[in-house]
Amino acid sequence: MPRSLPVVQPGERPAGPPVFERIAVVGLGLIGGSVALACRRAWPSSLVIGVDRNDVLERAVVRHAIDVAADDLGMLREAQLIVLAAPVLQNVALLPRLAEYVPGEAVITDVGSTKRTTMEAARSLPARLRFVGGHPLAGGARAGIEHASADIFERRPWILTPLPAGAAGTAPVDALTAWVGAIGAVPRVMSAEEHDHVIAFLSHLPQLAASALMHVVGEAAGEDQLAMAGRGLADTTRLASSPASVWTDICASNADEIGAALDALIAQLGELRAGLASVEVVTRVFDEAARWRDRL
Amino acid sequence: MPRSLPVVQPGERPAGPPVFERIAVVGLGLIGGSVALACRRAWPSSLVIGVDRNDVLERAVVRHAIDVAADDLGMLREAQLIVLAAPVLQNVALLPRLAEYVPGEAVITDVGSTKRTTMEAARSLPARLRFVGGHPLAGGARAGIEHASADIFERRPWILTPLPAGAAGTAPVDALTAWVGAIGAVPRVMSAEEHDHVIAFLSHLPQLAASALMHVVGEAAGEDQLAMAGRGLADTTRLASSPASVWTDICASNADEIGAALDALIAQLGELRAGLASVEVVTRVFDEAARWRDRL
Repeated sequence: MPRSLPVVQPGERPAGPPVFERIAVVGLGLIGGSVALACRRAWPSSLVIGVDRNDVLERAVVRHAIDVAADDLGMLREAQLIVLAAPVLQNVALLPRLAEYVPGEAVITDVGSTKRTTMEAARSLPARLRFVGGHPLAGGARAGIEHASADIFERRPWILTPLPAGAAGTAPVDALTAWVGAIGAVPRVMSAEEHDHVIAFLSHLPQLAASALMHVVGEAAGEDQLAMAGRGLADTTRLASSPASVWTDICASNADEIGAALDALIAQLGELRAGLASVEVVTRVFDEAARWRDRL
Repeated sequence: MPRSLPVVQPGERPAGPPVFERIAVVGLGLIGGSVALACRRAWPSSLVIGVDRNDVLERAVVRHAIDVAADDLGMLREAQLIVLAAPVLQNVALLPRLAEYVPGEAVITDVGSTKRTTMEAARSLPARLRFVGGHPLAGGARAGIEHASADIFERRPWILTPLPAGAAGTAPVDALTAWVGAIGAVPRVMSAEEHDHVIAFLSHLPQLAASALMHVVGEAAGEDQLAMAGRGLADTTRLASSPASVWTDICASNADEIGAALDALIAQLGELRAGLASVEVVTRVFDEAARWRDRL
């Protein structure tokens, strides 16, 4: 007889004792702000240190996202876990400076949308700073802590990309796996190379397709005719609201994989273009696309 | 002082006396079924004749979409308005046969997503059958009368493309304008050429982009990794569920305009591909796309 499992609602999960008592989040945008909110909800007694510019810190305090607001890196010395949540290349630039600010042991992770560049920069950290790359597949087109929420990680994959195991063994990955699970996400370990390949297709290509499509349609239709557009165009281009400031770093740090994904899309569009008058070509592409879509 | 206008809810609009007392809808899919439902709601005393295969007619009767179910064209002689709502090339094939079935005067329109091919076929109709092309910009990715609704036209544009005015003058366009408005849509008159150009961008290109994207991402990621995808990919590819059977006709009958739109998208994707490492290129494309998206 099947046992009935208790239904756990978001925010009602018994998070257990804190995996990390003191957490610093550097960069309080949509994802960093949501990490802070999720930690405070899971472990109300733990300390969340937020690091950002003063105007962002003020908004984070208003949202009750952080316990301590810091506009420089001095407070990082207090953290057992440091979450780098700035745009990718800012995280990369910050990594070599961490040793100076953090004299003791700490686990370092990030939430960037590309992994190889960040992992490469993390190799030069001293052994006491144990780095594991991270990427929560959560969020949306709207940036900023105003749109942050403790719920956005709920049941979403959170990819962890470990460095080759050193003296610390798997302890940092095990700790982060527990931490990620406790704030509602589903941890999944893979290599940085595998991450950058598959995410180029699952996340980066849809973003570039949406932005390119919106750009082309807007220029061709103009404002008056654009007003006739319906939900189809609106859905297909929702991602085009995403801020360029996040995406310049993603495009630059995953250019080879994104380039290959764009090539595949351009080739597919070219095949459709050549076969517009062919019932066979259009039917085959549409039918296969519909079958994949049904599995989403 | 501004006057306060009465608020009219969908279905509560005073539709006035029927513009057409007897309406035939040929093809009871999503759009045809919705036309039938909208007419029955606007004018409960008028007669709605549905023409389709028997299995579709049964579902239309269950939905209370039609008063009379006909599996051949004999009943068309009773209609003052005939709405062709089959896929585009089926409408085109049907047009030359209408004169045989409709001995008296009638207004003929269609709801197809391309207009030039249908308008060309309509030129050979006898003068008593007054044709005006039509295209309600409504619907969704899910086909079939099961998804039909009297509400889908509410406040949506309904493009009317008249033939050059003949002996009938503007009377058929005026009547259809009133009819379209009474069932909740916003009539907009333009040429078939203008329609096919702008709709290639507003509707056809997003559909092809969504199908091509879903095809490419599915093939690259496979089922296991596709399960990690989030709302971004889901939104961007929602249209990929659209049935090929509708789109083969649209692609074939608007191949030149869709081809040009695809060329523009392929060029834009190529520009992004060449500029992935350039902050300037990525920022410019994203910023302009976001500005257009905000106007949707």
